[in-house]
Amino acid sequence: MTLEFTVNARESHFKARAGTLKLPHATVETPCFMPVGTVASVKSLAGDDLESLGFNLMLSNTYHLMLRPGVKTIEECGGLHNFMGWPHAILTDSGGFQVFSLAKIRKLTEQGVTFRSHINGALNFLGPEEAVYLEETYGVDIAMMLDICPPGDAPKRDVVKAMDLTTRWAKRCIAARKHPDKTNFFGIVQGGIHNDLRAKHAEEICALPFDGFAIGGVAVGEDPVEIAKTVNYTAPLLPEDKPRYLMGVGTPKDIALAVAAGVDMFDCVMPTRNARNGYLFVPGGHISIKRQEYTTDMRPLDETCNCLCCRRFSRAYLRHLFVAKELLYYRLASLHNLAFYKRHLAQLRQAIIEDRLAEVIAPYLKEQEILEEEQRSKK
Amino acid sequence: MTLEFTVNARESHFKARAGTLKLPHATVETPCFMPVGTVASVKSLAGDDLESLGFNLMLSNTYHLMLRPGVKTIEECGGLHNFMGWPHAILTDSGGFQVFSLAKIRKLTEQGVTFRSHINGALNFLGPEEAVYLEETYGVDIAMMLDICPPGDAPKRDVVKAMDLTTRWAKRCIAARKHPDKTNFFGIVQGGIHNDLRAKHAEEICALPFDGFAIGGVAVGEDPVEIAKTVNYTAPLLPEDKPRYLMGVGTPKDIALAVAAGVDMFDCVMPTRNARNGYLFVPGGHISIKRQEYTTDMRPLDETCNCLCCRRFSRAYLRHLFVAKELLYYRLASLHNLAFYKRHLAQLRQAIIEDRLAEVIAPYLKEQEILEEEQRSKK
Repeated sequence: MTLEFTVNARESHFKARAGTLKLPHATVETPCFMPVGTVASVKSLAGDDLESLGFNLMLSNTYHLMLRPGVKTIEECGGLHNFMGWPHAILTDSGGFQVFSLAKIRKLTEQGVTFRSHINGALNFLGPEEAVYLEETYGVDIAMMLDICPPGDAPKRDVVKAMDLTTRWAKRCIAARKHPDKTNFFGIVQGGIHNDLRAKHAEEICALPFDGFAIGGVAVGEDPVEIAKTVNYTAPLLPEDKPRYLMGVGTPKDIALAVAAGVDMFDCVMPTRNARNGYLFVPGGHISIKRQEYTTDMRPLDETCNCLCCRRFSRAYLRHLFVAKELLYYRLASLHNLAFYKRHLAQLRQAIIEDRLAEVIAPYLKEQEILEEEQRSKK
Repeated sequence: MTLEFTVNARESHFKARAGTLKLPHATVETPCFMPVGTVASVKSLAGDDLESLGFNLMLSNTYHLMLRPGVKTIEECGGLHNFMGWPHAILTDSGGFQVFSLAKIRKLTEQGVTFRSHINGALNFLGPEEAVYLEETYGVDIAMMLDICPPGDAPKRDVVKAMDLTTRWAKRCIAARKHPDKTNFFGIVQGGIHNDLRAKHAEEICALPFDGFAIGGVAVGEDPVEIAKTVNYTAPLLPEDKPRYLMGVGTPKDIALAVAAGVDMFDCVMPTRNARNGYLFVPGGHISIKRQEYTTDMRPLDETCNCLCCRRFSRAYLRHLFVAKELLYYRLASLHNLAFYKRHLAQLRQAIIEDRLAEVIAPYLKEQEILEEEQRSKK
């Protein structure tokens, strides 16, 4: 273990905490959001853009990197930080989720998973030991164990199977580590939307000497109402003194409620992917930039935002760039949505420190209440 | 006329001059290169990127802007500078070249040209008065007259016809101007690769009260050897005391030789378009970034370059981004190629001031000599 996690403040009305996470390449204030740089690049943004927004921890993906540029290239280039020109911290997802969602002709055995690259069809194998080797060779600050992530609508018996295999792989992951002095490893708790399974799996995984713990298998196709329920139940089962990471989640509401439940770290493609599709976050909602009404709207996207996009450009210009499919659009939109997420997390952190989280998350709690009510009446 | 052009230094061995061009929105050192922002955006780059490279004059295109976002939108947004968030100078090409190269079902008459938009097929009309109206409404610093630009392989009689109509349109352009206090207009000299036609047309166009003069119809499909010959012959025919602009040209060699011939201003899509295609300029040549040999090459693209791309990223990373078609590639590559052009022009300017242009352009002169020799032996 090379990380140090300190809880600086606890909210008295919720399970939320504000912390400091010291990693080999950065000291990160939590709760934090990690921009997603799938193929060793946060789409359309350079390191200087991410730095200007205050990010010092980003995510990349083991599966994508093993296919392109490949671990040998990254190794010869002096590791992932060096290769990317990113001197700050990096977390890599192990690739389990991508193997099951992107790759073709896959075969899952006790040993690992055989799959064909979605790029060129080449046959590849990924097991827990291979994931450790890849992630340690990349030299990242935090590596995720290889897990099995069943789809959100999987039958319970499949979730149990995936969970049990994930536990066996967790033990193999721990045994395979060669550079615990450099790369931290996080365990992943699965169990779908089933509280009994989540409890059982949390017990198994948290018994292992991981440096932090993640909640996996959330926002993978289940009814969105279940996200908060599952996280609410699972987060407190993870060790108090280790960072807790909710993988691949989510909307500003999902994140706010998860922070209240005691989660410290988040990643999601939503801000950047939605940006590219014309969906731009503003306080209290979003703007669909392609709409006619913005054609001559010379206001900034968000008057309360200080990103390059909002400081310098108008909605009218952004709409024009989007409609004309100009490359500049993608950078400006991605910058803005990430700035929105960065600020969202900073506001949550501040509210924890000032013990007034209820105020900040009130609209999200209300929204969740309404959704749960609707779900109940449907049943 | 609102521009002031001052010649600061003349090279004693060539016709080259170093000048200062005062425009409503910027003071520009000449010879200068203008990045091309066809659709109100230099592809993949924001204003801050262009500023970081030292550019304060860019080009946009009347034809593209009239189709999208349209002159009404730009007018309602307070003009092109305001619309784009670019407070520095802008020159617009009149759209003549694009009408003939992009639009479908066009019909050319004495009055102007009727064409269908290449985007949605809508019928449009552009005549010399319409071009003046559009460019003055955009509110640009320098506007180009609407001209007829025949292809490089056009028969001489077609070049004569285009030239004669261009002269009549030049007079109508002058007559149609409503805001000479805001927008400068440049005349355009046509005549293909025929010296007699160039001489005749220069005489006609330069007799008109334009604020500057351009050489058009170069690099439009003729044998590349002819570029330097035509420019060499035509540039000195343009008034000494007005800025001279060579439209749409060219390679670093084309520009170096044209500067020697007395040209002050340049634009070309080459640095940005080539960047997007993996062709990156380095001193003395170029790098094709997709090549295998750069896979683990951790050197910067160009050790002598100070752009963001060269300061922070390696050839290996650039190659990876290019191969993976990551959006970030386009920004970094475009930044670098424009930085190369910016520096090329700055070096030419400095050489003029220090009266040692021969030294800087020697390799280009030699290359041109070889090409002309080859051309002669082919005949």
